[in-house]
Amino acid sequence: MPTRTQIPAKRVTSAREVLALNMIRLRAERGWSQEALAFEAELHRTFIAHVERQVRNISLDNVERIAKAFQVPIAELLTPELLEA
Amino acid sequence: MPTRTQIPAKRVTSAREVLALNMIRLRAERGWSQEALAFEAELHRTFIAHVERQVRNISLDNVERIAKAFQVPIAELLTPELLEA
Repeated sequence: MPTRTQIPAKRVTSAREVLALNMIRLRAERGWSQEALAFEAELHRTFIAHVERQVRNISLDNVERIAKAFQVPIAELLTPELLEA
Repeated sequence: MPTRTQIPAKRVTSAREVLALNMIRLRAERGWSQEALAFEAELHRTFIAHVERQVRNISLDNVERIAKAFQVPIAELLTPELLEA
């Protein structure tokens, strides 16, 4: 009988969710409000809010602006974080 | 004194360029035409062509479709390849 693992069942995550969670995490790390991120990325605050709520299908050019604002590689914004147990 | 590295001067690349080069590379690895990728990703062939020519600002949902077609993580599509010397 196979050993029962402690790994939770694989969640299906969307690119929108991965991006949103990373944006929220990076803002928290920097102590930035949505307004502050919007200012740095030269985007509108409501646009940032919609992306973080996953209701907006953001374009690649705008993902790139957000990555530049955070000074992280664009791939980092789209890499799922390790889920805690 | 720091050791002089062999790394070439950093090229400024856009997210569109990184994506396009990775799509072209992955298609070549799989022997896929633009039509074949379009079919797998359920997108139009001319759309794929425009993204590979970097003239189209693709949405995140469509980047995700392309990643699923290639069965690679979305972050891989947006990671610059190591430039050869």
